Amino acid sequence: MSNHYFDPRLKIFALNSNRPLAEKIASAVGVELGKCTVQQFSDGEIKVNIEESIRGAHVYVVQSTSSPVNDNLVELLIMIDALKRASAKTINVVMPYYGYARQDRKARAREPITAKLVANMIEKAGASRLVTLDLHAAQIQGFFDIPVDHLMGAPLIANYFIEHDIKGDDVVVVSPDHGGVSRARKLAEFLKASIAIIDKRRPRANVAEVMNIIGDVEGKTCVIIDDMIDTAGTITLAANALKEAGAVSVYASCTHPVLSGPALQRISDSAIEHLVVTDSINLPEESKIDKLEEISVCDLIAEAIKRVHENKPVSPLFESKLDF
Amino acid sequence: MSNHYFDPRLKIFALNSNRPLAEKIASAVGVELGKCTVQQFSDGEIKVNIEESIRGAHVYVVQSTSSPVNDNLVELLIMIDALKRASAKTINVVMPYYGYARQDRKARAREPITAKLVANMIEKAGASRLVTLDLHAAQIQGFFDIPVDHLMGAPLIANYFIEHDIKGDDVVVVSPDHGGVSRARKLAEFLKASIAIIDKRRPRANVAEVMNIIGDVEGKTCVIIDDMIDTAGTITLAANALKEAGAVSVYASCTHPVLSGPALQRISDSAIEHLVVTDSINLPEESKIDKLEEISVCDLIAEAIKRVHENKPVSPLFESKLDF
Amino acid sequence: MSNHYFDPRLKIFALNSNRPLAEKIASAVGVELGKCTVQQFSDGEIKVNIEESIRGAHVYVVQSTSSPVNDNLVELLIMIDALKRASAKTINVVMPYYGYARQDRKARAREPITAKLVANMIEKAGASRLVTLDLHAAQIQGFFDIPVDHLMGAPLIANYFIEHDIKGDDVVVVSPDHGGVSRARKLAEFLKASIAIIDKRRPRANVAEVMNIIGDVEGKTCVIIDDMIDTAGTITLAANALKEAGAVSVYASCTHPVLSGPALQRISDSAIEHLVVTDSINLPEESKIDKLEEISVCDLIAEAIKRVHENKPVSPLFESKLDF
Amino acid sequence: MSNHYFDPRLKIFALNSNRPLAEKIASAVGVELGKCTVQQFSDGEIKVNIEESIRGAHVYVVQSTSSPVNDNLVELLIMIDALKRASAKTINVVMPYYGYARQDRKARAREPITAKLVANMIEKAGASRLVTLDLHAAQIQGFFDIPVDHLMGAPLIANYFIEHDIKGDDVVVVSPDHGGVSRARKLAEFLKASIAIIDKRRPRANVAEVMNIIGDVEGKTCVIIDDMIDTAGTITLAANALKEAGAVSVYASCTHPVLSGPALQRISDSAIEHLVVTDSINLPEESKIDKLEEISVCDLIAEAIKRVHENKPVSPLFESKLDF
Amino acid sequence: MSNHYFDPRLKIFALNSNRPLAEKIASAVGVELGKCTVQQFSDGEIKVNIEESIRGAHVYVVQSTSSPVNDNLVELLIMIDALKRASAKTINVVMPYYGYARQDRKARAREPITAKLVANMIEKAGASRLVTLDLHAAQIQGFFDIPVDHLMGAPLIANYFIEHDIKGDDVVVVSPDHGGVSRARKLAEFLKASIAIIDKRRPRANVAEVMNIIGDVEGKTCVIIDDMIDTAGTITLAANALKEAGAVSVYASCTHPVLSGPALQRISDSAIEHLVVTDSINLPEESKIDKLEEISVCDLIAEAIKRVHENKPVSPLFESKLDF
Amino acid sequence: MSNHYFDPRLKIFALNSNRPLAEKIASAVGVELGKCTVQQFSDGEIKVNIEESIRGAHVYVVQSTSSPVNDNLVELLIMIDALKRASAKTINVVMPYYGYARQDRKARAREPITAKLVANMIEKAGASRLVTLDLHAAQIQGFFDIPVDHLMGAPLIANYFIEHDIKGDDVVVVSPDHGGVSRARKLAEFLKASIAIIDKRRPRANVAEVMNIIGDVEGKTCVIIDDMIDTAGTITLAANALKEAGAVSVYASCTHPVLSGPALQRISDSAIEHLVVTDSINLPEESKIDKLEEISVCDLIAEAIKRVHENKPVSPLFESKLDF
Repeated sequence: MSNHYFDPRLKIFALNSNRPLAEKIASAVGVELGKCTVQQFSDGEIKVNIEESIRGAHVYVVQSTSSPVNDNLVELLIMIDALKRASAKTINVVMPYYGYARQDRKARAREPITAKLVANMIEKAGASRLVTLDLHAAQIQGFFDIPVDHLMGAPLIANYFIEHDIKGDDVVVVSPDHGGVSRARKLAEFLKASIAIIDKRRPRANVAEVMNIIGDVEGKTCVIIDDMIDTAGTITLAANALKEAGAVSVYASCTHPVLSGPALQRISDSAIEHLVVTDSINLPEESKIDKLEEISVCDLIAEAIKRVHENKPVSPLFESKLDF
Repeated sequence: MSNHYFDPRLKIFALNSNRPLAEKIASAVGVELGKCTVQQFSDGEIKVNIEESIRGAHVYVVQSTSSPVNDNLVELLIMIDALKRASAKTINVVMPYYGYARQDRKARAREPITAKLVANMIEKAGASRLVTLDLHAAQIQGFFDIPVDHLMGAPLIANYFIEHDIKGDDVVVVSPDHGGVSRARKLAEFLKASIAIIDKRRPRANVAEVMNIIGDVEGKTCVIIDDMIDTAGTITLAANALKEAGAVSVYASCTHPVLSGPALQRISDSAIEHLVVTDSINLPEESKIDKLEEISVCDLIAEAIKRVHENKPVSPLFESKLDF
Repeated sequence: MSNHYFDPRLKIFALNSNRPLAEKIASAVGVELGKCTVQQFSDGEIKVNIEESIRGAHVYVVQSTSSPVNDNLVELLIMIDALKRASAKTINVVMPYYGYARQDRKARAREPITAKLVANMIEKAGASRLVTLDLHAAQIQGFFDIPVDHLMGAPLIANYFIEHDIKGDDVVVVSPDHGGVSRARKLAEFLKASIAIIDKRRPRANVAEVMNIIGDVEGKTCVIIDDMIDTAGTITLAANALKEAGAVSVYASCTHPVLSGPALQRISDSAIEHLVVTDSINLPEESKIDKLEEISVCDLIAEAIKRVHENKPVSPLFESKLDF
Repeated sequence: MSNHYFDPRLKIFALNSNRPLAEKIASAVGVELGKCTVQQFSDGEIKVNIEESIRGAHVYVVQSTSSPVNDNLVELLIMIDALKRASAKTINVVMPYYGYARQDRKARAREPITAKLVANMIEKAGASRLVTLDLHAAQIQGFFDIPVDHLMGAPLIANYFIEHDIKGDDVVVVSPDHGGVSRARKLAEFLKASIAIIDKRRPRANVAEVMNIIGDVEGKTCVIIDDMIDTAGTITLAANALKEAGAVSVYASCTHPVLSGPALQRISDSAIEHLVVTDSINLPEESKIDKLEEISVCDLIAEAIKRVHENKPVSPLFESKLDF
Repeated sequence: MSNHYFDPRLKIFALNSNRPLAEKIASAVGVELGKCTVQQFSDGEIKVNIEESIRGAHVYVVQSTSSPVNDNLVELLIMIDALKRASAKTINVVMPYYGYARQDRKARAREPITAKLVANMIEKAGASRLVTLDLHAAQIQGFFDIPVDHLMGAPLIANYFIEHDIKGDDVVVVSPDHGGVSRARKLAEFLKASIAIIDKRRPRANVAEVMNIIGDVEGKTCVIIDDMIDTAGTITLAANALKEAGAVSVYASCTHPVLSGPALQRISDSAIEHLVVTDSINLPEESKIDKLEEISVCDLIAEAIKRVHENKPVSPLFESKLDF
Repeated sequence: MSNHYFDPRLKIFALNSNRPLAEKIASAVGVELGKCTVQQFSDGEIKVNIEESIRGAHVYVVQSTSSPVNDNLVELLIMIDALKRASAKTINVVMPYYGYARQDRKARAREPITAKLVANMIEKAGASRLVTLDLHAAQIQGFFDIPVDHLMGAPLIANYFIEHDIKGDDVVVVSPDHGGVSRARKLAEFLKASIAIIDKRRPRANVAEVMNIIGDVEGKTCVIIDDMIDTAGTITLAANALKEAGAVSVYASCTHPVLSGPALQRISDSAIEHLVVTDSINLPEESKIDKLEEISVCDLIAEAIKRVHENKPVSPLFESKLDF
């Protein structure tokens, strides 16, 4: 592919967490990835080497803070420091997956708010902007004082189901917990479906939790939606409960496939027929089991980068069905 | 009442938004309110006069940013500035109701995040700490880099219902919208009740919204819970829908009774039997209609102030039924 | 009027305090006002809606912090926050009247310095520049670390008197208090006139203040000059005292017609023949009494905006008679 | 003198600009000056050596930024840096004379606001508080966001004249320029005297300035008051003009005797009988000409330091005749 | 051991990098380690749980940023955030080994200065102080604006050699590179020995580097000293070169035993008889080979913590032979 | 010379420390120096007057902080403040000699880190970038969070010796102290020479220091290299010791000729044949003794300014023999 974007001052760099996505984004924008390497020494320290001049450039650094989250975070911060000292004009952090987002408030005494700490670190290191996708809580935007362009994966996921004819009155979108009902309602609107909620609770002390279902799922095709799936405990229990409650079939979906620990085994063993995810997190080949359907966010992010760079509004990307 | 708290360096000041609550808090702590007056000149500018020395003191300023919100907010900021320049040792903002909390994220293009702006203003003016109650979103804690003591009104509200024997299997706690299900679940746990959700949606374009109920309410006593009630549109429609769906009786409850515009008329006209609120916002006498039941948060806040001042943990206040 | 300024990246927005002036400024610059609306909800909270993309634009926001000062100030801060998050390239606050300017120092124990607080809030919210007019104290420029373009209304006011042939040896410019003598001297230079000072003081305790006049006013036309007139108490007493001391006629003049409370009645009842003011503050129609002469600062501000935008020096605007 | 102040954590250090005053202050507080030396190397660089532990101490550093102003300013900043890194608990800058205070606003295009720069440098270096005296403009307090205790020399100066029976109807307090009338009015109140103003102006281009006098001075004893006297040009011309206008005798007075360049010669040659100053600036012995009367501010500052340290209000120092 | 330090407000917490040292420090101070746990979830995110109230406490957090450096660094930052939000009075970071210290300047184009980034992150997270040991470059102290207590291991290392009678004219202290000569000279002074330098250089292009020795080592006992030993390449080549040049025996020594990759094998295979290190970095048992001699810095750090807490000077710890 | 650089937005201003160099730089860039004057009043205060519009310009201010260091530093800070308030787009400080660089760490208790203080002051005043030359310690780059372009004089100095045929096996580059060995090694590489170190030490207490030489200098031409020469004590003793040890001839060289106090006399009296310096510091004519050879850094700095302005990499300037 040749380099054909009109403005050489736009540069995109990939760090180590999700190079395949970065390459697709760069290709969609029409630039080659900037030359840089990241070494990790035998004592674990990271050395970033930017191998082309970026003086005066508008730099976009693509890095998800997925596992190994601390290495990826520190790598990003070091890169920002290097870009700042090398006189980049703007430093735009493109973070398809924002790690530590679940630590977004003090839920118990003496907890940190690590998602804010991460925001503070990124700003203090010298970033000018954050481009991110489906934050665990939209309020994380307010953890920043630099502009945040918050992209949404829901239209892409909705497209997948619509194209597979999973829509309409026979479909129920299910929130796997109490906090995700708005997200389920939004997908349900795309699919013209109804919603249900899994009301996980412990009837009495010392009694196992039950997956109570609020809403009607019997005879329906269920689509469970979450922003991320980590160990997949809740979502697989939910899927099984839906099946027991008479669901015809159960799909699951999330933007960020964290899929750590027992996740893949649980999904394989569960009633979930297909799990639809995006490539915001780079999955190893062995994780791409048959049930997994991966949608790419590369066009969405590439379009956002171009709009940011050309001072065009980014909001149209959220307001209708995407059509690149 | 005499002044009997052991440490004269603890001082509590009331600004104009909720002086009755501030007086109860001071009384519960065992101090007299600090002497200060706030003048508003004929051109609308505010002048704060602190009429006793606070040099070296630990000052707690009680101010809800309820209506008139901008006056109350600027009054607070001016007070913080005055305290800082007068050499207060710490400036602790006690804000039972945090105004602008609903503007906590960019939901559409080019929106401000006013709740973060408010946080930035408070910090920049010179506050050392925020003590607040039932934030609209818990993530607002992370808008601050100073310590936030986030108190919870749920146990107080739960107490009210338990004392009135509204609990157990015949009760359903209802979330009036998709975003409040976790809050409903928490109250349901106190009341050992089940939950339901109002799924307000528009079936087709150009068709009126319907109040769809997810969950089983027939023959039950319903308790609708929200963090705040502003114009009371949603909650009164919800109450009526619950009644139509067979609910035996409908109670409503919230921490912050904003009750603006048509709120009182709507509540009076609705199926709501009783509306249980706290005194985080000072209601004018004419708002205290018969259906309204007001619980005071003065003991909760007074206890928090004492614990902060004495370096004792505040967290026990959340962890069990309150018992002052 | 058509939109004809050459650079579409220059955008001017009006908030609510002085839309007529903002419209004249925009017209003089040659742009249409940017589309934005400000809603105030029934609970008093403000919601700013910017209805066109401003990504990468140089935005000028016109807002005087006149009455209702706190609403206007918070409205401005919210607008700045929204512009910052929407990726404006620069945010230039055009504040023809800077409210709270009289609280510019600690005159007594434990006073705030609210004019500095306002400066801190504007900077922290994200402004890049302040364009303002006739600050109560020129030192307020130093409250900011962003550039301040401080425009002067004196030449415009001088023009008015010169055009009405109020100039030369028969004219005395009068400072209504001890702090305004330099301002009077500056206008006197334009008018080639002499000066006098009102030395208001209390001869003994428990005796009424007297308006002592220092300087010779007998048989002269007096022009009292101040930066702002609020309740008009001092200036009307001064006018009457001048008349009693033998002045032929008394004019008054100020840049900022705050005119709160009893001001209009006092002016009507006083010896003042004409009161010359600018439109830095938007007066309601009922305030425009016959004695009031309003000069527009729109051309001055429009020229300043163009010069700022085109990187031309703004200082020539102060150095000679204005001639647009 | 033995060291007898009760709290060893209060430490006072003197830098090089005004060691005699610092010694008197320390003595009045009841402590010995902290041990520190300042070396200046042959290349002009300054090295500060603090020769006793100040960990956890409340340190007061006495330094006027008088001539050589840049050396004294940098010396102060280095001392603050050293104290901060050596873990002082608070760093209180005691600056009897605040140099660069006249550069407090942009009076012409592209001027710096050096008085704000100085404030920024002091805050950034790490100071916790400023104690200062008779700022050239009271608004300089607002250049700081740390607390400023602004002491006033007027009562001390008034005392001098009252003790010498210069008071009452036969006395006129004279402001030497348009900006100092409020200061003259304040002293006149202490002395129960009237006021006059020197209205220096140039009648026509290319004609010498004349010292016009506004107010009645014939047969009166005149006391010219200013905050500082630098080259003494204006004040000596003013004195002579007063004498020519029939003044019986002319005294002059200021808080800060800068007295640079031709000042002493001009004063010697002028109609000024006595010039009353404070020791805020340390004058060399040869400057202490017969006409000069020096009043010490040591007790005023010592009392302020004690009150700050003991968390007592400082404001009573301004509100009545001082009586230590 | 019982808890016997007099002030319960002093609390020491250990994170995961070097718990054995933290335990020894706590024991030497006379407190028990504070209760906290650090979980790492299956996706790699860290959760810090502080299990006792630290409100108002002076907290010391012991954490070396040794391997895995990014995990340890982020763990520390999260802990600081949690302590700040939990109202610790001061947060003192005790970092016996400061990772990333070698990235302390831009040596080539577009390099980051990661050691400064780390300093910025620690300060921004909320630390009040850093206590550290033998920084790679002393200038790193200046990367901070909070106080840094920089302890020195040289006296402890010198003690070891003196106790083993390695001192005097027969000993040469050797710097393994050009940058470490001052460090060698300092140890040589303790040992009353002479110095030599390894002048590693490449005689011509495409020719292997030679370990040229500057100074006289024949017949001497050599002690190579460095601040840290990472892969041990240079130091083992140096040892062998010294042996070949006639050294009787070769010892090596460093404060920070990073010992990554091939380090242990190289040391085993080299001419080094004994390698003397401190426990600033926690070595796994398998790294403690026979040649390794470990000296504990626990008493040094414990004494420093006590002195900081009691506001006693820390400097005496550096000025003479340590004697706890 | 006519002004011929293509972009009028690039402006270079000279302050007072090194106007001759600034003129050469401007000439080499192809611009005329910007118009500005610096007055020093009789009380020592500095007033900066920028006499042309710099609104929107990229301004480079040339100022070495050589003696009088405090005047030069404050002059620079005031200039930065003025440029910031006058709306310069970027403010680039070009500081060929960075004063106070030797105070770059706490070497003893309670020392300041003045080099960091200077960095903080420059950043806080409003600088956007620092261009500097041969910092005393490269770590000072990390004292800044703005970009630093750190130029190196070594190639220029090496060129001088190569052109004078001082190179190869008969030459030894000598470090005059333990800290400068890396600098000596770098020059030795240019000259293909060997190195030696002066090991100044005191054999026993109360015995004079001896200048021990490590390395072989007999029969060689010695080139002593340092970053700066201040009082020239060490370097002249070193030169004499080298001569006594059999050196054929001794040259000395440094980037920054501070040359204060007895420096010139010592050099004249010493064994140094020629002292090669740059014009980073402006020497008075009387300092330019015969032994002194001055090389200009004007082309190096001019090229750096052009590259910065044109967003070209600056690093090529360091990587090969300079060839403008």
